[in-house]
Amino acid sequence: MSVRIGLIGVGMIGQDHIRRLTQVLFGASVVAVTDVDADRSKSVAEGVRGCRALGSGQEVIRADDVEAVVVTSWGETHEEYVLAAIEAGKPVFCEKPLATTQDACLRIVDAEVAGGRQLVQVGFMRRYDAAYRAVKAVVDDGAIGAPLLMHCAHRNPSVPPQFTSDMIINDAAIHEIDLVRWMFGEEIAATQVLKPRRNSKSALDDPVVVLLEMASGALVDVELSVNIGYGYDIRGEVVGESGTVALAETGDARVKREGLRSHRVAVDWRERFSRAYDVELQEWLDALSAGTSTGPSSWDGYAAAAASDACLEALRTGGRTTVSLRERPDFYMKAQ
Amino acid sequence: MSVRIGLIGVGMIGQDHIRRLTQVLFGASVVAVTDVDADRSKSVAEGVRGCRALGSGQEVIRADDVEAVVVTSWGETHEEYVLAAIEAGKPVFCEKPLATTQDACLRIVDAEVAGGRQLVQVGFMRRYDAAYRAVKAVVDDGAIGAPLLMHCAHRNPSVPPQFTSDMIINDAAIHEIDLVRWMFGEEIAATQVLKPRRNSKSALDDPVVVLLEMASGALVDVELSVNIGYGYDIRGEVVGESGTVALAETGDARVKREGLRSHRVAVDWRERFSRAYDVELQEWLDALSAGTSTGPSSWDGYAAAAASDACLEALRTGGRTTVSLRERPDFYMKAQ
Amino acid sequence: MSVRIGLIGVGMIGQDHIRRLTQVLFGASVVAVTDVDADRSKSVAEGVRGCRALGSGQEVIRADDVEAVVVTSWGETHEEYVLAAIEAGKPVFCEKPLATTQDACLRIVDAEVAGGRQLVQVGFMRRYDAAYRAVKAVVDDGAIGAPLLMHCAHRNPSVPPQFTSDMIINDAAIHEIDLVRWMFGEEIAATQVLKPRRNSKSALDDPVVVLLEMASGALVDVELSVNIGYGYDIRGEVVGESGTVALAETGDARVKREGLRSHRVAVDWRERFSRAYDVELQEWLDALSAGTSTGPSSWDGYAAAAASDACLEALRTGGRTTVSLRERPDFYMKAQ
Amino acid sequence: MSVRIGLIGVGMIGQDHIRRLTQVLFGASVVAVTDVDADRSKSVAEGVRGCRALGSGQEVIRADDVEAVVVTSWGETHEEYVLAAIEAGKPVFCEKPLATTQDACLRIVDAEVAGGRQLVQVGFMRRYDAAYRAVKAVVDDGAIGAPLLMHCAHRNPSVPPQFTSDMIINDAAIHEIDLVRWMFGEEIAATQVLKPRRNSKSALDDPVVVLLEMASGALVDVELSVNIGYGYDIRGEVVGESGTVALAETGDARVKREGLRSHRVAVDWRERFSRAYDVELQEWLDALSAGTSTGPSSWDGYAAAAASDACLEALRTGGRTTVSLRERPDFYMKAQ
Repeated sequence: MSVRIGLIGVGMIGQDHIRRLTQVLFGASVVAVTDVDADRSKSVAEGVRGCRALGSGQEVIRADDVEAVVVTSWGETHEEYVLAAIEAGKPVFCEKPLATTQDACLRIVDAEVAGGRQLVQVGFMRRYDAAYRAVKAVVDDGAIGAPLLMHCAHRNPSVPPQFTSDMIINDAAIHEIDLVRWMFGEEIAATQVLKPRRNSKSALDDPVVVLLEMASGALVDVELSVNIGYGYDIRGEVVGESGTVALAETGDARVKREGLRSHRVAVDWRERFSRAYDVELQEWLDALSAGTSTGPSSWDGYAAAAASDACLEALRTGGRTTVSLRERPDFYMKAQ
Repeated sequence: MSVRIGLIGVGMIGQDHIRRLTQVLFGASVVAVTDVDADRSKSVAEGVRGCRALGSGQEVIRADDVEAVVVTSWGETHEEYVLAAIEAGKPVFCEKPLATTQDACLRIVDAEVAGGRQLVQVGFMRRYDAAYRAVKAVVDDGAIGAPLLMHCAHRNPSVPPQFTSDMIINDAAIHEIDLVRWMFGEEIAATQVLKPRRNSKSALDDPVVVLLEMASGALVDVELSVNIGYGYDIRGEVVGESGTVALAETGDARVKREGLRSHRVAVDWRERFSRAYDVELQEWLDALSAGTSTGPSSWDGYAAAAASDACLEALRTGGRTTVSLRERPDFYMKAQ
Repeated sequence: MSVRIGLIGVGMIGQDHIRRLTQVLFGASVVAVTDVDADRSKSVAEGVRGCRALGSGQEVIRADDVEAVVVTSWGETHEEYVLAAIEAGKPVFCEKPLATTQDACLRIVDAEVAGGRQLVQVGFMRRYDAAYRAVKAVVDDGAIGAPLLMHCAHRNPSVPPQFTSDMIINDAAIHEIDLVRWMFGEEIAATQVLKPRRNSKSALDDPVVVLLEMASGALVDVELSVNIGYGYDIRGEVVGESGTVALAETGDARVKREGLRSHRVAVDWRERFSRAYDVELQEWLDALSAGTSTGPSSWDGYAAAAASDACLEALRTGGRTTVSLRERPDFYMKAQ
Repeated sequence: MSVRIGLIGVGMIGQDHIRRLTQVLFGASVVAVTDVDADRSKSVAEGVRGCRALGSGQEVIRADDVEAVVVTSWGETHEEYVLAAIEAGKPVFCEKPLATTQDACLRIVDAEVAGGRQLVQVGFMRRYDAAYRAVKAVVDDGAIGAPLLMHCAHRNPSVPPQFTSDMIINDAAIHEIDLVRWMFGEEIAATQVLKPRRNSKSALDDPVVVLLEMASGALVDVELSVNIGYGYDIRGEVVGESGTVALAETGDARVKREGLRSHRVAVDWRERFSRAYDVELQEWLDALSAGTSTGPSSWDGYAAAAASDACLEALRTGGRTTVSLRERPDFYMKAQ
């Protein structure tokens, strides 16, 4: 009943998923790991009961006792490992991005469709956040009428030195890109990226405002401020024909002191989305046990990559860029 | 159409009411003032167009051009001036307390009833606060069912050195005492005062919790913390049979900075209740013009004094103290 | 000390200002009114002590006892009356718009500068709202760093049948146009108007999103939803380099019943901005008494008209439109 | 590494704990169950892999493969099973109450102390709620000064027909009784129970207000409304010398529609405290693995029973009742 997992890439997120799978969630064991840094994978394997370090991702995927694969390696390697898992007929959970190019994503889509079985889940964890789910439930319920607009904000206290302006799109905005496809149940048709006055504390195009036009004409604006200092703050409000629904503000305790009534803001994404990661992997495990597939698919990974590429072009050109997607195979459900 | 007012006692609150009557509100002029400090009354009169300083409160009340009287002198003098105004047949607005003893209050009630005309309004300004009125509207509407409980908190950042533990009752809690009579539309039947662990920054019985039993059995608890430092904060929540309604939290701007989402708390009662004072006096002026009387009456002043005395006894004895009121003359409306 | 006012145009807003000036605020009397509907002006004048109806706006402006003029007539007539007031050397409060074209606004600016005295105030009342002022105080204080973005929403429950898509710009968005000039202390440089999926309950381009680029590069997005049903809701959040500040949510009482914790939303602009109108006119009267001028000027009226025209063009073309302003005469203070 | 658990009593809460232990949490298996209803235990055992039904609680406790015991049977049976687990030297998690009388609790305390090893944890799950923990962190940090007061409210939408007025104390208020001992780190010294006007929809003494005096003099007031209809709502605010800290209001999504801005209130305790139950059992399992004991102890169960008994007496007499506790064995940590 417990799923035996092989995990590729034991960096920060990889180790965190191992912790989840072996100390928090129900129904999994991690039996094999690997990493480009062999010493690191050996050391991690020693800390997990019944786990061994193998020499390569391909070895992990082929190992007889590995029933499902988690890919948390460097983005450039995702395509190879996901394709190998499909080839081996094993379910694979791949952290975002599915692959680094649209073409690579399509090769995965094609392989999966050819294989005839949905095996791939992409790590878009916001779909598993309780607040986003509550917002979507209100929208789906029709309580605010048809959704016409969504206002989003994605604020990081700071980003590391190696962070680039492009990463504001393909590392940060990518979350909202998947999110709005899921929230509105439709594809992104076009995008525009606005560059306001720059934050003097930031070396990047920061903040930017990404505009996403959905297929229905619904419009999403996303503020991305990645050096705002005060905390990690994710906002979202859907505006419908007769009402609005928004992520509630967070903070467990309300303090009154020194002239202020206040709540804490989360310090980082770990604090804000820790539970969403738990739920994401637990539902993946539950779906594996049930033999079903419920999470973001290869198609979602491809569609997000296409929209992200369009945003990058829009960032460079300053103009409106349309998103061209291949036709969606019936194999995949409509974005929901 | 403009009411010519004589004002007795030009201390802080007196001067503030002069400012209201002559620079903020519509329909009044201040034509005469007096004060125990003759120099002060002269100096204040000079700052107000068409106003003169007189030698005594009695002179102010008797002055031919004075149509209505505002009493903002020391509490000990209230009885004399209010009785004189009744005697002169002139409407009188008297800051709380109506008088310093229940007997004195009753002498005013008797004089007013004998005179056959409701002339006295007591300065319980919370009844004019927009938030309290919104709470009462919900209660009166029946939206939460019959009211069973009310939780109140009355928090001062600090009090001046001359403030005594008794004043926590008759200067601070007196506001809630009038308020709950108005909110529930009934008298207070009994009281108990609890003395929790003392605030080490305070030399008083501080905080205290005052319990007020209403005639219907509804129960009110009032926290009084008069040296809490963080701000001036007045809270109130009525609990009904099927819901609750509370004063909303205040603060015009929501700030996110340095790890906190916050709103300012008012620094003092002026900031919190400034508008309530304006509305209180404006409605008094409007009622004068209309020849009616709508505010807290002599009876309300007496009933508040009786409940306040019971609280003081309860503070001293630690036990439950009943409030005995004389029967209410039909002359006065039911507390509403 | 009381300012004698002549008012032109006794429609809804005109009558409301008469009520304010004669029953709410301190320091004014309305001595003359006029209207295209002579019966209406006669009937209104009869209800105001000491007020007479005159035959035309010009007569009102010229009347010897009229010290200051309030223009609340149809927008097309504003230019004529404001110019006449300048000619007569009398202060004039003109409801928005200052005039219906940029050229007309400039004629007013020129006349005022030529006259050498600032006489005109335009009725942009949001600058007088306590919440907007609290937001601006935080921005000006530097508590969130330099302002980079502002997110606004302007939501009407519904608009009357004669409301047009253009009016979404020049009747609704005009408030935000003035507001952001004041908030950021700089002019609007360019604009773009986005048309999302249309609200099926509305016959207009509704909602729209107006993008305003400030001279410094700061960017403002304004959602305008004028048939959203649920209430009148005005939102605003300024995003700075290290924090954000927003209009607090409104609602005096917090109710818990039937599964919800809720606050009322204002039903219309009267409820939301009633106090702002009071403060606006009181400060105008106070400035008149002090011989100064503190409110939105002719220049502000002109700059708002120019930005509004650019938005209308952007609405038609779908493209980015720059705002060209004449150079600001030193006569006018910098937008602040 | 996985703890093999025997569970006694497969009613609603028992089955819910089985679900947690076998489908949600990490590190446990349920190997044996029993129930007074043998059919029910058989049927439950069949649904759990590797689990068998045994004939009695004693058999479960004695079973060689049972490493730890969970007691979720009827309260009357708790003493017997907890004592048997101590006798067998096996850790035992016992749902509240630890036992139905103070004497029974003391027999457990004595047995545990005699055994020399802390084996018992009582199911007071509020200590594991994120919001209560955030409140306690602020208090412990000293950010609001020494705690002087706590205001609590415990509101149930309704209670089943068999619910009695006594159960308002020993089934509902018992949670706050444990909670405040933990929050303040000290024992309850005395109590008083006030009976306000009765909810006409309730056949019970409902609402009641329980006053708890802590050893330090700090005072707690607890409103218990068990038929309030609108939802399940748990409130708590600690008032310190210089500030306050409260449980934040809950609700994942903020909806604006039909004139209201609203958040959902939880419908029942399952929704409100589901995560707290998960964390409670996970930390118990983690402590078992680590060979430590961190949760509410036998002593906490006894102290809560003593305070609960005092409240019941206070409910009957209407007077103040002191809580007499035996001296705490050094074996147990101070309440923290």
